[in-house]
Amino acid sequence: MNTNTVYLDNAATSPIAPEVKEAMVKAMDVFGNPSSTHGYGRESRILIEQARKNIAKELNCEPGEIFFTSGGTEADNLAIQSSVRDLGVTRIISAPTEHHAVLYPAEHLERQSNVKLELLSVNEHGDINLDELEKLLSSSDEKTLVSLMHGNNEIGNLLDLDEVAKLCKQYGALFHSDTVQTIGHFKIDLKDTPLDFATCSAHKFHGPKGVGFLFARGGVKIQPQIFGGGQERNMRSGTENIIGIAGLDAAFKLICSDREEEEKRLNNLKGWMIEELKANRPDILFNGRSGDIGKSLYTVLSIALPSDGKNDMLLFQFDMKGIALSGGSACNSGAQKGSHVIESIRPDLPTQNIRISTGRYTTTAEIDNFLQAFKELSKG
Amino acid sequence: MNTNTVYLDNAATSPIAPEVKEAMVKAMDVFGNPSSTHGYGRESRILIEQARKNIAKELNCEPGEIFFTSGGTEADNLAIQSSVRDLGVTRIISAPTEHHAVLYPAEHLERQSNVKLELLSVNEHGDINLDELEKLLSSSDEKTLVSLMHGNNEIGNLLDLDEVAKLCKQYGALFHSDTVQTIGHFKIDLKDTPLDFATCSAHKFHGPKGVGFLFARGGVKIQPQIFGGGQERNMRSGTENIIGIAGLDAAFKLICSDREEEEKRLNNLKGWMIEELKANRPDILFNGRSGDIGKSLYTVLSIALPSDGKNDMLLFQFDMKGIALSGGSACNSGAQKGSHVIESIRPDLPTQNIRISTGRYTTTAEIDNFLQAFKELSKG
Repeated sequence: MNTNTVYLDNAATSPIAPEVKEAMVKAMDVFGNPSSTHGYGRESRILIEQARKNIAKELNCEPGEIFFTSGGTEADNLAIQSSVRDLGVTRIISAPTEHHAVLYPAEHLERQSNVKLELLSVNEHGDINLDELEKLLSSSDEKTLVSLMHGNNEIGNLLDLDEVAKLCKQYGALFHSDTVQTIGHFKIDLKDTPLDFATCSAHKFHGPKGVGFLFARGGVKIQPQIFGGGQERNMRSGTENIIGIAGLDAAFKLICSDREEEEKRLNNLKGWMIEELKANRPDILFNGRSGDIGKSLYTVLSIALPSDGKNDMLLFQFDMKGIALSGGSACNSGAQKGSHVIESIRPDLPTQNIRISTGRYTTTAEIDNFLQAFKELSKG
Repeated sequence: MNTNTVYLDNAATSPIAPEVKEAMVKAMDVFGNPSSTHGYGRESRILIEQARKNIAKELNCEPGEIFFTSGGTEADNLAIQSSVRDLGVTRIISAPTEHHAVLYPAEHLERQSNVKLELLSVNEHGDINLDELEKLLSSSDEKTLVSLMHGNNEIGNLLDLDEVAKLCKQYGALFHSDTVQTIGHFKIDLKDTPLDFATCSAHKFHGPKGVGFLFARGGVKIQPQIFGGGQERNMRSGTENIIGIAGLDAAFKLICSDREEEEKRLNNLKGWMIEELKANRPDILFNGRSGDIGKSLYTVLSIALPSDGKNDMLLFQFDMKGIALSGGSACNSGAQKGSHVIESIRPDLPTQNIRISTGRYTTTAEIDNFLQAFKELSKG
């Protein structure tokens, strides 16, 4: 059961906002099947299409380019798997630091069809090299999908979407970006940034789990991976998750409403943590770019301590003190499992990694609580 | 907007029960990522696994045989698509009266891979012929998946699951049944009935949309269609829809708690409708087996009137009177579009079809209201 009181794992998932709860409870009475043309159905259809319009307006894209899914993982799979099946893609360029929702479908396609998967190298900071990407793009005429995430969920690195999109356009490649950690949190203008696919998961910004969307640029014609009643303009069958979509809509509105203030507030908390942690443990490392404010997610700070036996139980000890943290992604929150991301950027130096990820409801007191506990637990 | 007050389209979707709302609101505070091992994560994991246990107990199967999905359509697709990809299935036997969530993935597989799709014939009542099925099964050694629904969503026909399962077992075929209209509504004992796959959608029994499950018998080893974090024992990636699963659990418990009484009550309402409709319009037809109480879903009555011009606007006129009905499935609720199911059983006699589908909250007054409106609108 939950014995924690300090929640610093917002990149894994985030608490539902009161405004979102309210919207979801209200939507519980909107129950008609949106495919029905009677009154109950029309009411549901209006709710869904209004949500789609609100989201599209914020992203500066067309409502018809937003396809609701059961979350970010399904959206990433839809973009990647359908690109190969329907758009003639025979080569995928990605990076070892991507989320498994990108790497695993790509590896599956490599095994099952004649798709070549090429992973860019990453340096010790987790950065990819745009020159290497350009070299790869220019080296072949194969139809290529580039899949590179906007903000890394473990080490916080931010990608320059515009630069990558420009390169992809120049060489006729499609560009998919897993934007699950950034959409809503950062301003993304889809008219200005010529990416082809972007993905969203509502629970990363205080919405419910089980709902998200794929942005697929108008000109891109892909087929569904789930067939049936032809919902979402035949791109994603299955009766629409109305309560979830209402929650996604409310959460997206909320996160976009004051993101500049929140960015500032959370970067301040992050700066404070960086100073305190360095002062307390001069041997501390910051994974990836997460220690560089402005070059990383303002919600993520990932630290590394020597894997010297003393630190092996740290996450468990934090948990015992009521503080919820992660070792990397959700899959190893609170546990000391390996992270494929950190291994890919620092293969030769095993460390104990802790990700502190903040959100809208993170308080100064929680950070203080964490820092006090850190001092006690990490005595060198 | 919704100007209706009488809801008789429960086979398309159903209102959320107060007990379900309560469970969902409570689950809004259980927000940890179930893959996280800290306190917040453990709390979520417990909720999900308790729901899985409750459902498995009711169905007399193992919790490990229940895989949560985004709904019935995804579950049907997972069973059918993965059978071909992972279980060596090269032939699918189905029927023209199946839901599109079964027919469309099967047709897609026929187009994309070397899968043969064979559709059984159906008679004017919508019945399949078990002798024909046996003949087909015995005619070939190809690895076969039989996909036949338990209860037809449009015409109410019930399949004898035991007989079909026995035949499939005898000839080494896999058996998938779309049980979306019957699971919960009817007692299904999965230890007794040797089917391999069954599917569920929560919103068909007063749960939320966007959540359901696939039952896959223990011995069956299929791979996911959505890859990523490896949730649902690596069968269905994506952070679990906790609020939805809590709603599914509560709805399943509720529908199973008094189904015999509800079956009796709704069959009484159905019997009353049949008598009144026949007395009022001697030329009325009942589609499929829906007029045969005991041989059809107790929730579905499908009627046909001559397509003589006078009846063409009936559904629209009911809608104007505040009564929500369907022309067949949700996709043509309130609209006069063709139904592939009714066309397949009665290709030569075009009719105007109306499906009246009832549920837990259907009252005698609503049926009376419908019957009065029917008398006024359908004057011969």
